[in-house]
Order: sequence, then C-alpha cells, then structure tokens
Amino acid sequence: MKNLTIGLFGFGVVGEGIYQVLQDKPGLNCQIKKICIKDISKRRNGPAAFFTDDASEILNDPEINVVVELINDATVAFQLVKKALQSGKSVVSANKKMIAENHSKLIRLQAQHKVSLLYEAAVCGSIPIIRNLEEYFDNDMLSQVSGIVNGSTNYILTKMASGQKSYAEALKEAQSSGFAESDPTLDVNGTDAVHKLSIIALHAFGKFVDHKQILSKGITALSAADFQFAKEKGLKIKLLANATTTKNGANEQHHAVFPTFVKAESTLSQVDNEYNGVLVGSSLADEQFLYGKGAGRFPTASAVLSDISALRYNYKYEFRKGTSTASKTDNLSFGTYYIGFDKDEKIDLLIFSKVHEQYSNGKRAYVIGDIKNEHLKKIDFWKKDSISIIAFGFNL
Amino acid sequence: MKNLTIGLFGFGVVGEGIYQVLQDKPGLNCQIKKICIKDISKRRNGPAAFFTDDASEILNDPEINVVVELINDATVAFQLVKKALQSGKSVVSANKKMIAENHSKLIRLQAQHKVSLLYEAAVCGSIPIIRNLEEYFDNDMLSQVSGIVNGSTNYILTKMASGQKSYAEALKEAQSSGFAESDPTLDVNGTDAVHKLSIIALHAFGKFVDHKQILSKGITALSAADFQFAKEKGLKIKLLANATTTKNGANEQHHAVFPTFVKAESTLSQVDNEYNGVLVGSSLADEQFLYGKGAGRFPTASAVLSDISALRYNYKYEFRKGTSTASKTDNLSFGTYYIGFDKDEKIDLLIFSKVHEQYSNGKRAYVIGDIKNEHLKKIDFWKKDSISIIAFGFNL
Repeated sequence: MKNLTIGLFGFGVVGEGIYQVLQDKPGLNCQIKKICIKDISKRRNGPAAFFTDDASEILNDPEINVVVELINDATVAFQLVKKALQSGKSVVSANKKMIAENHSKLIRLQAQHKVSLLYEAAVCGSIPIIRNLEEYFDNDMLSQVSGIVNGSTNYILTKMASGQKSYAEALKEAQSSGFAESDPTLDVNGTDAVHKLSIIALHAFGKFVDHKQILSKGITALSAADFQFAKEKGLKIKLLANATTTKNGANEQHHAVFPTFVKAESTLSQVDNEYNGVLVGSSLADEQFLYGKGAGRFPTASAVLSDISALRYNYKYEFRKGTSTASKTDNLSFGTYYIGFDKDEKIDLLIFSKVHEQYSNGKRAYVIGDIKNEHLKKIDFWKKDSISIIAFGFNL
Repeated sequence: MKNLTIGLFGFGVVGEGIYQVLQDKPGLNCQIKKICIKDISKRRNGPAAFFTDDASEILNDPEINVVVELINDATVAFQLVKKALQSGKSVVSANKKMIAENHSKLIRLQAQHKVSLLYEAAVCGSIPIIRNLEEYFDNDMLSQVSGIVNGSTNYILTKMASGQKSYAEALKEAQSSGFAESDPTLDVNGTDAVHKLSIIALHAFGKFVDHKQILSKGITALSAADFQFAKEKGLKIKLLANATTTKNGANEQHHAVFPTFVKAESTLSQVDNEYNGVLVGSSLADEQFLYGKGAGRFPTASAVLSDISALRYNYKYEFRKGTSTASKTDNLSFGTYYIGFDKDEKIDLLIFSKVHEQYSNGKRAYVIGDIKNEHLKKIDFWKKDSISIIAFGFNL
C-alpha cells in the first residue's frame, strides 16, 4: 500500500468532509499536507498551517503525490489539474464540467506523465458507475446506459409531479432544501447531465463524444399541462441521459439528454427526489441498476475517498475499450417526442416523419410523433422556453 | 491482454450460453478448448470434439490456463477447482455452496499457486456486488450489507403476498416458471442465502464467517396470516441476508438470514419476483443500491463472462481488507422479531427480553418482542415449520 501525501484544492463542504475523515482514519495512510483556498482570510475548521492561497505550494512540493481538486471554476481547475499531472502527481477530481470539456487532453496527460486521474465523484456522486463501466462491464456486450444523473433537476421534477408545483416554486423549494445551487443554470438547462453523459459514454463504449454535439434540453420549459398529461397516462417525467449503441455496434451511438416519459412501474421511475439511478443494459444480463445519492456533501466525499483509497494501490482507468475520437453519428435513427405548446405557438408538422397524436383545447396543445434525431439537430424551435419537448423512454 | 484457453466443466444452460458467446466474439481472445460433462452420450449443441467426460483432459492440459466450473455437485466441484488451482490454472466459478464451504482453503490455494479464483456469478447473478465490495467500497467506512440474494424465494414471497397464494402453490408456480429448481431445498430453507452472505461478509469486512454459525431461517414456515399481518401494517416480507458491523467496528459483526419485514416504501421492498437487490450502507454515502436479475441463464452467464474477461488482465481479488479468521461475535445485540404460531403451540415468553405486542384470535397468535441474538442461537423451537419467525428490518 502506497502512502499518500495530499494537496487539496478547495475547502467547501466536500473538502472539509474529506479533511475530517482523513484526520479520523490514520489507518488509511493518506495525509493532507496542504490545502489551497481562494480566500485565505476566511476562518476555516483546521489548523492555519494547512492553508495557503498559493497553488505552487502544492504543485511544487515534491512530497505531495496526490492532488484532490474540488473547486468550482472549471477553467482554473483545468490549469491546476494539468500542472499537477505534469508534475507527476495523481489527481482526484469531482469537476464534471472541467473533465467533459478537456477529457481527451486529460487522458493524454495522465498517460504521458504515467500518473492517474480519477473522477468517480464527477458522475452520479457516490454511485460507482465509472468504476463499474471501466472494470466490470468491460466485455463488449454493453448496449445502453441510461440514467437520472442530476439530483437537482430530479428533485424539482419530483416536486412538480407530486405537488402540482410550478417549475419556479419547485426550484425555490429545491434551493431552500439545499438540493439546488443558488445559480442552478447548468443543472436545469441540462448542461450538467450532458457533461456527465459524455464522460459515461467514453467509459461505456470507448468513444469520445463531444459534449457540444449531444442533443439536449433541460427542464425549464416543462409546464403543469405536461405533468397532467403524464399523470393521466400513468407516466413520470424524468430528465434522462442516454447513451445507446445501434444495431451496428459500439461504433455507432446515439446520445441525448431530454425530459423523458418513463412508465410508472419502470425501475427509473422509482428514482425520486435528489437520488440518481443508472440502468446499464447488456445483451446478456438484461438490466443492471445502480442507485444512490447523486450529489451532496457526503455522497461526493465518499466517491472522492474511494478514489483516494484506490490510488494507494496505483489504480488508474485503463480505457481498455479505447479512446478513439469521433464515434460515427447515428444519422438514421428517430425518436418519438411529445411537443407541448401554448395556442399562440405554431408548430410545423413537417418536422415529424410520422404524427401519432395531436391535441388542442384552444389554450394548450401537443403533438406526439417521430422525429429523426439528425433533423432535430438542424432545427432549434424546440429549444425555446415556451416549448416542451419530452422524449418517450420506451417504444410507443 | 492475455489470451485465454478455457476448459469448461458443465454444459447446462449457463455453460452453453458461455460457449455460444465466446464462439460469437473472437475479439474477446478467449477460446474454449475442452468441455467436460458427466454424461458424454447426451446430445449437445457443439462439435463432439469439444466434449469429454475425463476431467484430466482439462486439468492436465498445460495449454488450458483457465477453468470455468459450472457443475452442481459442490464436493466434486471443490476437487476439480482445487486441482485446477494447483496446476496453475485460474478459475471462474458460480458455485456458492462450494465456495462458502471451502472459502479459506480456496483463498490459500489461489495465493499459494499465484493464480486467480473469481466467483462473481456465485452471489446475486449479474449484480457485481463482490467486485464492488472488493474494489470500490474498500475504505473502512462500510457499515452494512443487506440484500435479497435469492431469486427463487423472492419470487415465491412476491406471489404469496400479491396473490394470497399458499407457500406450496407459490412454489409450484415458481417451479413451472423456471424460477425455482425441482429440488428447491437449499433455496427455501435459507441455506443458499447463508452461503452467499458468508461470501459477501468476507469481501465487505475482511473477516471469515463460518456459514454454519449464521443465524437463519428460510420461508417454508410462513403462513397466510403472516402476510395478512404485513399487509395491514404496510409492510412486505423479504428474505434478507444481513451483515452488519456494530459500533465497535468491522471486528464485531452480526450476520443473519431471516424473513424480514421491510417498509413498503423502502428500496428493498421494490425488489420483486426473481430479482435481487443489495443495499450497501456506509457512514458517508448513506446507501448504495445495486439491483438486477439474481439468477438464471443470462445473468449468471454475464457474470461468468465478466470474470473471464477480467482474467485477460490478470485480475484477482486482493482481499485488502484482510482474511482473518473468526470475527468476534456480537453477543450483546438483540433483534426485534415477530413469532407467529397456531393456537396449539406454546411459546415461552421468557425468550423475549422485552415484549412489544401480543395477539391471539383463538386460532392464530403472534408475539412481537426483542430477543438477544445470542439467546436465539441457543434455543431452537423457532426452527420448526409450525413457527414463523420474521425479523424487523427497521427499528420499531
């Protein structure tokens, strides 16, 4: 077992949790030597000698062999992580934005400098999805990964569905309960789920997916009428992140993040409030389901600690499925979508290759039909906040 | 990546599934060279040249570096696996009875001969519980593993609860649907779950647990009255396998397999029919939940294939949490139990350290109270088929 000397960037709730656990468990053989924070004048729960606002005190210290990066700013985080890897230090990070935006560079850096970069905490908090995709589901029979990967939006959707709350009311409740950030933009517009999906897709299928190319919409446009529709049909609305291979195999994939109708009796529909859940579909084992708290102090700290712990045994992601760039886009496939809108909107029915249902009561209307995913990429009326788009998570 | 040349013992549904997948996926670099079966005269779906009834054709073939053991007889299986390990071959096995009965010997053998013995398929089919306990939940903050680990009994309990079926009727239905064996003894009397629990406990807490010392009862004594009671209280009855540390840490544990009341809204109560589900409790991450098909051709084949696949990268269980013998028994703890019985039975109330409830309608009666687990080990009236004992999976 390797002895780890840790430099920690960031001392928010997660950082402080990690600090406390490592102090309490000397048997783990992991000592924090230095903690770098932005505002050195702020009072912290730890001896002053630990703290610095000078990153080089960590990055240039040859004794520090592990950097744990827990700061918010993805750009600053990337610079720190890059320098740490270049200095031969292994890194544990929980920063999904930083990783999704720099995934290929980071993987090159870790290989080049023969160090390890682990980031289980970046995806679904304490659920060990990356480790399982990397280590366990590594035979080539994986067909699909589909998950509720953002706790804030799942909490909001749960409250909208159960309490007939508006989006604004549910968001406020999520914020006051600590389940949504004061600036929830990246969560509610789907970006956070997109970042996580691009990370998942690489570990699932061995192909880099440019997060900017992933079809997505968040939950801000959903209206009471959409939830009413779901309720009448025995469905729930969940923000699902999906990576699916086509019948042509892992080289051709479909990726999307959409509010999605799931059947009330399905496994994913049991995932409520701030929880996350991921279904892993394989041709042999049917479905595997992993469930747990997706975000928050303890789940994130737990995942970071598992990564730290694994570094003691020189664990690294091996990317055995590959890290090739640009998977072939799935041009031919279509999805079935519900488009909801107020009477003043005009929807061009020609976007549908097939219309299944149309409804209007003079105030609110919806159309359900098939749309080619490639077509959806070329038009953008559905991105407006006055239009709901909800995918069907099952065959109509 | 290592090239694997496989000798397969057993060609039932799982063995045949493995054979087919490996034929279809030459990219996996795993070739089956020989298949050893009991009855060579039986017609098989494969070229005759593969088959033999002479184990030495596999065990003495230096080219074969992996043995996959999929036979029923635990005694014969142990002899084969032992010889394989001694001949320097790695082994994948799905035989929980064989492993539970010989766990320490097997681990010594694999270490001594520097080979790997993997057995993910032995516990909860396709759910990667052993791998996750071994690799991911390896910091010492794990507090509890609690699971529905036997698909047959879970199927029967589901049918008894939903269809007001008797045990005998539900068993018959399970057998005709292929979810229970023609001889279901080891499943329904709890032994199968006990075997799995002893395997889980070692990987969770690093302590050998003698399966013969685990408190347990199966489901054969449960009556319609017990299910009626559960229904009225908003509870479900599940056969739970539990390994819990006490406040004194991993060195002091409690292990038991009992029919258990779980609240209808709990995660484990969502696990119905032939599915398995395992809750992993840690002090930091609250609960992690893994869910999937626990038994059957494809789930088992999938787990075996994941183990085979991992052998290509020389994966072995490291037992970093230890393999010390005899964990200290948790003498002081008590459980809360429901004891149900017909009017002719006499129950000595002195077994309870505290009685919470008593009920009788002249025909059927029950007592709910606290019993010291140590006390339960010394008496055995509750093992009778005329007495229901159901643990409470939550605090009363």
